[in-house]
Amino acid sequence: MKGEIINIGDELVSGRVCDLNSFFLSGRISSFGFEIKAISSVGDDEDRIIEVLERAVSRSDFVLVSGGLGPTEDDLTAKVAAKFSKLPLVLNEDFLTLIKRSLNERGIPWFESYKKLAYIPQGAKLVDPTEACGFYLEQKSVPIFFLPGVPAEVRSLSENKVFPLLLKREGEKVVIRQRILKLFGPQEAQIGEKLEGLGANENGVMIGFYPNFPENHVTITVRSDTEDQAVQILNRLETEVDRRLGFWIVAKDGDTIEDGVGRMLTEKGLSVAVAESCTGGLISRRLTSISGSSSYFDRGLVTYSNQAKVELLGVPADTIASHGAVSEETALSMARGVREKSRVDIGLSTTGIAGPTGGSDLKPVGTVYIGLAAANGARAKRYQFSGSREQITMLTAETALSWLNRYLKDDSFILRH
Amino acid sequence: MKGEIINIGDELVSGRVCDLNSFFLSGRISSFGFEIKAISSVGDDEDRIIEVLERAVSRSDFVLVSGGLGPTEDDLTAKVAAKFSKLPLVLNEDFLTLIKRSLNERGIPWFESYKKLAYIPQGAKLVDPTEACGFYLEQKSVPIFFLPGVPAEVRSLSENKVFPLLLKREGEKVVIRQRILKLFGPQEAQIGEKLEGLGANENGVMIGFYPNFPENHVTITVRSDTEDQAVQILNRLETEVDRRLGFWIVAKDGDTIEDGVGRMLTEKGLSVAVAESCTGGLISRRLTSISGSSSYFDRGLVTYSNQAKVELLGVPADTIASHGAVSEETALSMARGVREKSRVDIGLSTTGIAGPTGGSDLKPVGTVYIGLAAANGARAKRYQFSGSREQITMLTAETALSWLNRYLKDDSFILRH
Repeated sequence: MKGEIINIGDELVSGRVCDLNSFFLSGRISSFGFEIKAISSVGDDEDRIIEVLERAVSRSDFVLVSGGLGPTEDDLTAKVAAKFSKLPLVLNEDFLTLIKRSLNERGIPWFESYKKLAYIPQGAKLVDPTEACGFYLEQKSVPIFFLPGVPAEVRSLSENKVFPLLLKREGEKVVIRQRILKLFGPQEAQIGEKLEGLGANENGVMIGFYPNFPENHVTITVRSDTEDQAVQILNRLETEVDRRLGFWIVAKDGDTIEDGVGRMLTEKGLSVAVAESCTGGLISRRLTSISGSSSYFDRGLVTYSNQAKVELLGVPADTIASHGAVSEETALSMARGVREKSRVDIGLSTTGIAGPTGGSDLKPVGTVYIGLAAANGARAKRYQFSGSREQITMLTAETALSWLNRYLKDDSFILRH
Repeated sequence: MKGEIINIGDELVSGRVCDLNSFFLSGRISSFGFEIKAISSVGDDEDRIIEVLERAVSRSDFVLVSGGLGPTEDDLTAKVAAKFSKLPLVLNEDFLTLIKRSLNERGIPWFESYKKLAYIPQGAKLVDPTEACGFYLEQKSVPIFFLPGVPAEVRSLSENKVFPLLLKREGEKVVIRQRILKLFGPQEAQIGEKLEGLGANENGVMIGFYPNFPENHVTITVRSDTEDQAVQILNRLETEVDRRLGFWIVAKDGDTIEDGVGRMLTEKGLSVAVAESCTGGLISRRLTSISGSSSYFDRGLVTYSNQAKVELLGVPADTIASHGAVSEETALSMARGVREKSRVDIGLSTTGIAGPTGGSDLKPVGTVYIGLAAANGARAKRYQFSGSREQITMLTAETALSWLNRYLKDDSFILRH
């Protein structure tokens, strides 16, 4: 089934309010294997709303409209819905009762202007017969759902009423399953080449990828008759993506690197501490964004000054003097230092030049060293990143976390140079 | 002038990526007094894209298109732009040179598929003749700007090139100047009440505000005949906003709190160190996001474990045992400890329960203490925030930075309780 989403309200086209409903609705609807063909936002303008409704109905199997159902003059949706569907706007007594009850429960005094909320096109049904919001009607056999604009209401109404109605409507017994593989490392073009031909001649298989800085995400979507079959196809395709690009996969589906790292640290009973210079706290921030991280994250030291590196991490002042604060030797010493001083299993470090100033011929902006120290050894390596200060910082943090990820999957990682 | 925004990409209509460009573009464009009549998102579907382009051109004075300019098969925008405007797709040598230079600077190896990026409709101009992204052309005297989909690129290209081109196009000798006052603290409704009536009867004056979590931003936009007059009106209105809401203003225009804090620290020759618990590195990260911060930011200690608080900050184990790690006493001791151990002028600390677990009746999730220590004293205070782990962390970091901001503006801040 193909559908469209229409958002109504001046606040959306004037940049006063960010439309988050479309992101939620399109994501959920895609997960059922339905397709959203277009999302439109229009202001409180009768002609425009009718135009966009007509176009949507002419080419869709369903339409979701949100916004413009309030009690003020600007709220045109019910009126326009009636005009568009050539039905009179009539007072729906059930709706009026629900509205009065809802206001009463929320302690809001009755104003005559609220009566307007209960006028809906004749024959339209309430989306939820127990709730005072939203109605739907059919036009040329296309159901059009008119929902409020408030994100929380859109979420609960659509999850509880709209999606079940759509799924029931589709009738077919089709199962849709999706997997997302998150890659860090290769460029988009490289991924495109590696994935060429995969799933190309298979019915019901879609392979896609999109950038999500600093990662690239590959999606495998499968439509099938049964759950078992869908999962089987998904597994086969995932194995193939893994064969072609596995080295770069850092997380799957709803996970982030820090989720996976957190689980492995917990399972293995290992602890970690971080010594950051150019990443300025971003690695600590990402690791501690996970609820429960206090069981494996001991501390993060943002040692910006050389003095802090010497005092807190025990980096020899000599090392900094002879090799520089941005060097393999310093990164190594930072990782070892934070590990020993914190008595944790793994020490992770970064030092580099995030720019835009501070670069030199030998160490231009974007020069970064990452270090990791553990019981079985320690390593550090130079990287050359590019981009803004923000991008270089993000690339460095992602690389450091992917080192930790690799180490936890295979601790011989530390012995490779 | 009336315009439309069109976003292209399957990732937008399938809910994989949230469209933030439209919110930014429509907000900025509205601030110039232009009007966005519609925002549309369509997938990578040639016919749909052409249809939406045709409709937009037929009724707009300008059109902004974003997305679909990448190197992969899915990226159709250039091809569709050519078909729509009935111009051949030709290799633009200047563009190719820029693309090669840009890849080279970023250390990205050349792939043959990148060549595709340089094919644009004959006669189309580069949006920025020095940057490898975006082109524009005219159709029925309507300029259509084709921009990348990456938000950072959309922002810089539109601020630096597209908006000036549009303003120049408008032609009238009108000067538009805007000021943004960034507030942290009051609720939206409170701001609305405080601003009531301001600029209401003045020609060419628009006062608006919008949430930008955890801040609220007030915009003052003035259209006038001359630069001098515009600035004069702007200054008068800013003084009035300052009178009504000044206590909560943390930054202005393109600045963030950390920009202002950085400038004040530099001017006063003061240094800072941070001891973070529940913010997990976010304060360090924000302070170090400023280029040149190494001159005043000495170190940030993410002391997650109690042991780290004792060892690194010298918080007495007794204090933690009797008052808890989340307490006024611990926050105070952390701020004093990080200041003394790092020998900096100002120590800033946070400790709290970011949730979703770890709360108790006495200290529910969202209980946070912030501490600040300096030469003239030290203070700590309890806050009760609510929201997700992420929101509580962001509110805490913002509050701590606003403490530092206030202290730097008036060091008697530390003496108030």
